[in-house]
Amino acid sequence: MIELLENERIDDLEYKGLKIIQNKDGFCFGIDSILLANFANEIKEGSTIIDLGTGTGILGILLSKKINPSKIVGVEIQKEVYEMAKRSIKLNHLEDKFEVINSNIKNLQDNVQINTFDAVITNPPYKKMGTGVINENDKKLISRHEIEASLEDFITVSYKLLKDKGSLYMVHRPDRLADIIETLRKSKLEPKKIRLVYPKEEKEANLVLIKADKNAKSFLKIEPALYVYDKKGKYTDEILRIYGKELKLKNEK
Amino acid sequence: MIELLENERIDDLEYKGLKIIQNKDGFCFGIDSILLANFANEIKEGSTIIDLGTGTGILGILLSKKINPSKIVGVEIQKEVYEMAKRSIKLNHLEDKFEVINSNIKNLQDNVQINTFDAVITNPPYKKMGTGVINENDKKLISRHEIEASLEDFITVSYKLLKDKGSLYMVHRPDRLADIIETLRKSKLEPKKIRLVYPKEEKEANLVLIKADKNAKSFLKIEPALYVYDKKGKYTDEILRIYGKELKLKNEK
Repeated sequence: MIELLENERIDDLEYKGLKIIQNKDGFCFGIDSILLANFANEIKEGSTIIDLGTGTGILGILLSKKINPSKIVGVEIQKEVYEMAKRSIKLNHLEDKFEVINSNIKNLQDNVQINTFDAVITNPPYKKMGTGVINENDKKLISRHEIEASLEDFITVSYKLLKDKGSLYMVHRPDRLADIIETLRKSKLEPKKIRLVYPKEEKEANLVLIKADKNAKSFLKIEPALYVYDKKGKYTDEILRIYGKELKLKNEK
Repeated sequence: MIELLENERIDDLEYKGLKIIQNKDGFCFGIDSILLANFANEIKEGSTIIDLGTGTGILGILLSKKINPSKIVGVEIQKEVYEMAKRSIKLNHLEDKFEVINSNIKNLQDNVQINTFDAVITNPPYKKMGTGVINENDKKLISRHEIEASLEDFITVSYKLLKDKGSLYMVHRPDRLADIIETLRKSKLEPKKIRLVYPKEEKEANLVLIKADKNAKSFLKIEPALYVYDKKGKYTDEILRIYGKELKLKNEK
């Protein structure tokens, strides 16, 4: 029996029978997580993966079935969100494969081995501290603003966790792309692949997916543009393919 | 009377009566110059502009009519190309407005005033020295490979030439985007606007247009994707609009 707290609900991911617990006032995954899981889909079967800022556990839950890794570790700073992810893991019978740790990503040294992970995935807070309107509840605040850990923390921790030539997969906002690239370079994580997500044609990009490899040589590919909506305002074929036929885009982060 | 050397021809730009001298074995402008001129079209009338690595002078010639600047300075290292640009300036009666200097961009201190230009435009060599196949004649080699000046030289010289908050406009290859952003940041030129050029849908980007402002605050916009060809293999409406109805895409760099 899985316990649900107030305001929580179980959503059917409609993908290989997966389900997820979400809190409608706090932590619902969005299209960014789905696109990141798809972008990271090239990670090899049997890999070890760590998800920094795992939230509801959506990335780990999806990747556990998509690529069959040997181990996924999720790190979540907020106790009640961590508890929620744990219950979702149980709900999906993924306890053997997917472990969550309740910790600030900066304090992982006692919990995980450095230089060992094949891949890091992360959907970090998008907003620099001191920018944007802050009128949210605490839970959303920490997942959206760099309060407990900065972009630089996410990147330097990723470097430490990855094995040589291991890959970081990140989703972020395009307005931070210069910060991201500069910090990756400084941290010896070499940007290898970028994909811009545009809401529709003739609109500015609103998400960026980045892959960077530890200690790799420089050569960057900018992959084909990804559009969410077509000219008629319907989901594009690619988005429908990524989501699977049924999974509804009913959640927003 | 304008003198033409062997292998040179006069091409009609079919834009406000402009013409250009090109050498079919060496220096024909390409779509990258046209897209950069269009990207830089926001430069205000009456501005002072410097074009680093001016080649045939295509950027200065187009911008002289597009935005009516008070002055354009072109810098070209190769003597015979510099001479060719000079003759094109004469051909278009732009001597009052558009001056070319035969110099390495690194040795400009005696010729131009630093901290004064409103805008720098540049279509620098794309290839790092030591990369790519080198089997070209000398003229093409210098315009394509970083032999006489590196990307870092182009960026640090741009910083020196620009006035505070002045703008650098550059076209380059996406595989160098991390180098470009890292070097801009190091040089206190803040990336403000990026536009990716994709040959067509579902293809990787093959050009990137970047605007960076001297000593500006950070906030980057990724503009709508620009496609050269549509699904049927024809030029897109936007490309036709940029080129004007008539200007043919007959030249490649």
